[in-house]
Amino acid sequence: MKLGMIGLGRMGAHMAQRLIHGGHQVVGFDPKPETRRDLKGKGVESTDSLAMLVSSLPAPRTLWLMIPSGEPVDGALQELQPLLAAGDTIVDGGNSNYKDTLRRARIFDDCGVGYVDCGTSGGVWGMAEGYSMMIGGSEATVEKLRPVFEALAPAKNRGWGRVGPVGAGHFTKMVHNGIEYGLMQAYAEGFSILQHKSEFGLDLHQVAEIWRHGSVVRSWLLDLTAHALDGNPDMTGIAPYVADSGEGRWAVAEAIDLDVPIPVITLSLIQRLRSRDSESFSDKLLSAMRNEFGGHAVKKA
Amino acid sequence: MKLGMIGLGRMGAHMAQRLIHGGHQVVGFDPKPETRRDLKGKGVESTDSLAMLVSSLPAPRTLWLMIPSGEPVDGALQELQPLLAAGDTIVDGGNSNYKDTLRRARIFDDCGVGYVDCGTSGGVWGMAEGYSMMIGGSEATVEKLRPVFEALAPAKNRGWGRVGPVGAGHFTKMVHNGIEYGLMQAYAEGFSILQHKSEFGLDLHQVAEIWRHGSVVRSWLLDLTAHALDGNPDMTGIAPYVADSGEGRWAVAEAIDLDVPIPVITLSLIQRLRSRDSESFSDKLLSAMRNEFGGHAVKKA
Amino acid sequence: MKLGMIGLGRMGAHMAQRLIHGGHQVVGFDPKPETRRDLKGKGVESTDSLAMLVSSLPAPRTLWLMIPSGEPVDGALQELQPLLAAGDTIVDGGNSNYKDTLRRARIFDDCGVGYVDCGTSGGVWGMAEGYSMMIGGSEATVEKLRPVFEALAPAKNRGWGRVGPVGAGHFTKMVHNGIEYGLMQAYAEGFSILQHKSEFGLDLHQVAEIWRHGSVVRSWLLDLTAHALDGNPDMTGIAPYVADSGEGRWAVAEAIDLDVPIPVITLSLIQRLRSRDSESFSDKLLSAMRNEFGGHAVKKA
Amino acid sequence: MKLGMIGLGRMGAHMAQRLIHGGHQVVGFDPKPETRRDLKGKGVESTDSLAMLVSSLPAPRTLWLMIPSGEPVDGALQELQPLLAAGDTIVDGGNSNYKDTLRRARIFDDCGVGYVDCGTSGGVWGMAEGYSMMIGGSEATVEKLRPVFEALAPAKNRGWGRVGPVGAGHFTKMVHNGIEYGLMQAYAEGFSILQHKSEFGLDLHQVAEIWRHGSVVRSWLLDLTAHALDGNPDMTGIAPYVADSGEGRWAVAEAIDLDVPIPVITLSLIQRLRSRDSESFSDKLLSAMRNEFGGHAVKKA
Repeated sequence: MKLGMIGLGRMGAHMAQRLIHGGHQVVGFDPKPETRRDLKGKGVESTDSLAMLVSSLPAPRTLWLMIPSGEPVDGALQELQPLLAAGDTIVDGGNSNYKDTLRRARIFDDCGVGYVDCGTSGGVWGMAEGYSMMIGGSEATVEKLRPVFEALAPAKNRGWGRVGPVGAGHFTKMVHNGIEYGLMQAYAEGFSILQHKSEFGLDLHQVAEIWRHGSVVRSWLLDLTAHALDGNPDMTGIAPYVADSGEGRWAVAEAIDLDVPIPVITLSLIQRLRSRDSESFSDKLLSAMRNEFGGHAVKKA
Repeated sequence: MKLGMIGLGRMGAHMAQRLIHGGHQVVGFDPKPETRRDLKGKGVESTDSLAMLVSSLPAPRTLWLMIPSGEPVDGALQELQPLLAAGDTIVDGGNSNYKDTLRRARIFDDCGVGYVDCGTSGGVWGMAEGYSMMIGGSEATVEKLRPVFEALAPAKNRGWGRVGPVGAGHFTKMVHNGIEYGLMQAYAEGFSILQHKSEFGLDLHQVAEIWRHGSVVRSWLLDLTAHALDGNPDMTGIAPYVADSGEGRWAVAEAIDLDVPIPVITLSLIQRLRSRDSESFSDKLLSAMRNEFGGHAVKKA
Repeated sequence: MKLGMIGLGRMGAHMAQRLIHGGHQVVGFDPKPETRRDLKGKGVESTDSLAMLVSSLPAPRTLWLMIPSGEPVDGALQELQPLLAAGDTIVDGGNSNYKDTLRRARIFDDCGVGYVDCGTSGGVWGMAEGYSMMIGGSEATVEKLRPVFEALAPAKNRGWGRVGPVGAGHFTKMVHNGIEYGLMQAYAEGFSILQHKSEFGLDLHQVAEIWRHGSVVRSWLLDLTAHALDGNPDMTGIAPYVADSGEGRWAVAEAIDLDVPIPVITLSLIQRLRSRDSESFSDKLLSAMRNEFGGHAVKKA
Repeated sequence: MKLGMIGLGRMGAHMAQRLIHGGHQVVGFDPKPETRRDLKGKGVESTDSLAMLVSSLPAPRTLWLMIPSGEPVDGALQELQPLLAAGDTIVDGGNSNYKDTLRRARIFDDCGVGYVDCGTSGGVWGMAEGYSMMIGGSEATVEKLRPVFEALAPAKNRGWGRVGPVGAGHFTKMVHNGIEYGLMQAYAEGFSILQHKSEFGLDLHQVAEIWRHGSVVRSWLLDLTAHALDGNPDMTGIAPYVADSGEGRWAVAEAIDLDVPIPVITLSLIQRLRSRDSESFSDKLLSAMRNEFGGHAVKKA
């Protein structure tokens, strides 16, 4: 198939290359000229505008968005809408909020343009190992794109599937990321206990390697953790500051809306907030309160 | 009554003064000569040794311990044991672990010395407002001490009581302190939300004052919080560092032993640990893991 | 002052009576005829429609809404809008989401109608003890209503205040309720530990009474807890099912939006969700997972 | 090597068979005659007493314990002690608390008997796939047992290692199990969100299969979860009741002792406690408190 890839950042560029490697033709677009130039060296042809991208594709066209969620997606869709015709298909492969996806799909549905949400997991390793894809959309539209998903997935019949109607893909990916937060936090806490037990002189990288084979906690995240600990078991040079890209927040909000208790995923998010709050007002106030009732000394800032 | 107060730190000195004010006679002892000297100025007579303290009391003697839990209590008790006789009574008014109390009471029981554990709450305000006392021991022994408890309590018949056999007093105080952690954390979190909502320009001290009257969250801790916020609503000069004196840990361990889920008290303790862990290894590792799978930038230390 | 009270449920009826007792005139309205009838017996005059209510008030009019948040408030406001004139004032004394309040205030601002949000705490005890009120709105509008707030508050100058512009009142009340969840959960957990420690045979009502006087954990919620434990220390006949009325959810969402970690308030909400989920899917799946890897027996439903 | 396996339950029997398959000779012992009989059919020779087991082994002897932690281990060791001689080695392959291990190793050290703690992960799949082993003990003693570990591990040089002195093995296994709790809870929560989002009609088994390939959350536990969901996506017939075997409790206690905040592992344990507390006293009291202050209806038991 020939398709347009909108957004040639790390994820988009990698996916374009995996598609080309899988026998597909990809025309790319990215607003940054230098990004487009870089990709040319990697075999990905690109155009200078969205309009040119659309006109370079045979009808019915397939356009894959791989851009930051929120306003950037709305901006691109607004620009695309007048350029597309009934029968064309848009795939949003980024981390959009599923509620935005539902809203957007309704708009394109009115124009006869198919809308597919593809929650994509795999990170920087996806180009080599394939992507895990949770897909929402009509059965017919998803089926039309089968060759694309087969090429991007780790194997033809594995790691991808239509999980439900439009929105279901991004919803499932949101939950996936919530789980990811919880898994990461569980490993981080465990290694932190090991690290603080100085009397045993544990080698954290060695422990991670042992666990990678045969243990109940073996996983891909553990493989990566072992890699991160190799050569830097004390995490020297790394600040205790953990960013988040939003899906965890949505997962927490959704669970509360559904009355589903998810304490561990929620706490994982909260710990990330805490990691960025080095001047915690709560903790200062707690210290002041202890002083008030018990006369306990306050540590000075 | 005439009784011996062992330990003339903040709590012991205050209690001695409240007892004297209530018509009792108190002879004190503290290992530090300067502490003994200071107390003389406040009307509390003291002796230079435990032996002198014991010999200065009429039989049957009552000795009230107000010293740090753990080894200091065991040390004092070991020294006291040969000095006491059947019919004497020991009151441990400090924050001992109830399991230590059970062990100690058995030893003194064998010598016919009564043992009473008095969990004492009230902090630096207790001298003026009276102490809340949760008391464990035999009915007869506790009854003998009634005048002492009536003088220390906020009112003759209020704020104190025999809650069960030996150990029950310190057990109840341990749970009291666990609750205290949870209450404090709940207020601290709430005020932190208010503090971060800059667009409303809230005056935290004013809000605390409003809540003190008529609201569902009014409490003594809120009174103290209002006082702490008065004049220093931004907690300037205070480090986000919260100590803990151990009872919260025991409460968490006890609840787990009893299979009782206490998520909020437990989290309140964990947040205090986190407040003292400004170089969180967990958070560094989480940051490294995000870099491994997603290529996300790591914040440098 | 003479004012209209819209909504004569428990809260509205109580407030109307406290206002009348404080020397004000109140005309009420409630869509349910029987509610209006009941109130007549308690000295609160009421009208049969919103239009009649508005026309029965002298200009500039003051209308106090005490109705369930969300659609009911929007419905009442829509009906009121054409009936009001510049200079009139609306007070929303219910638990509206502050974002709704901001939206509604803008609409009335355009018509010259003042809009005040009054977060009201005090529950069923407010009629007798007075209400704690956190008020948002312009300084001039709030000042005009001073006599009303003075009458509703526990004391003329206590328990109420203008905390900021429109929205600030409901925002502060939302945080107040979040704190309330945390406080309640902390007490509930502590009493649960006591209840499970059967060897000490603790009397939970007695412990609560002791703590009410002189202890660090004394509070109004503890007073109520003591009352609830009196006569029913085992909570016989009460299901382990805890409802929530929404403000806690908003507080959690707001804190996450502000990047403020509030683990304890959040967990308090999550535990309420869990209390209503007696067929927890998570727990069933955990049991199945244990069986998968360890061959551990699954408890049958 | 020829060695004695004490305890022929699921784990011991599987390990004996894997060792025999790996070319070792194993003589077993289990107090239950029927267990011994069953094993004979699977090629594992066994004796009728510990004394016979010891005398059937060539000096220096190696005895591997695979029995429940706590008293059973102490009982077996007490019986073994007089039967062993300097140069012999004991391996505790079960889930002993590392503090017990330190105590026991000191006793055997005095007799010149080597003591090795081997934290063993792999569950019912270990026989086929190999066990992950975290080993504590002196370098020389562990090295002597190398052929045994190589046979039990998933591969000769993978999945096992001496992580430190005696105690370090069980310590590391304890932390491993803590992580396991956190991982399991994170998956369970995520799938619970999916299960409650009825509007998307998600097939949980399908989602698990998609995630198994290429996603960030792929893991062995996810493989097992997919298996558990296959054919029973609603967990029909399974009670929401999650047992725990103790290591998670020790991990939580250890972290608190070390001042290491591990909120997610701790909450995972607490949720298990909650799953077994269908008559939560906390929740009943919370419901009663809501009734006290707000007049909210209590759900009847």
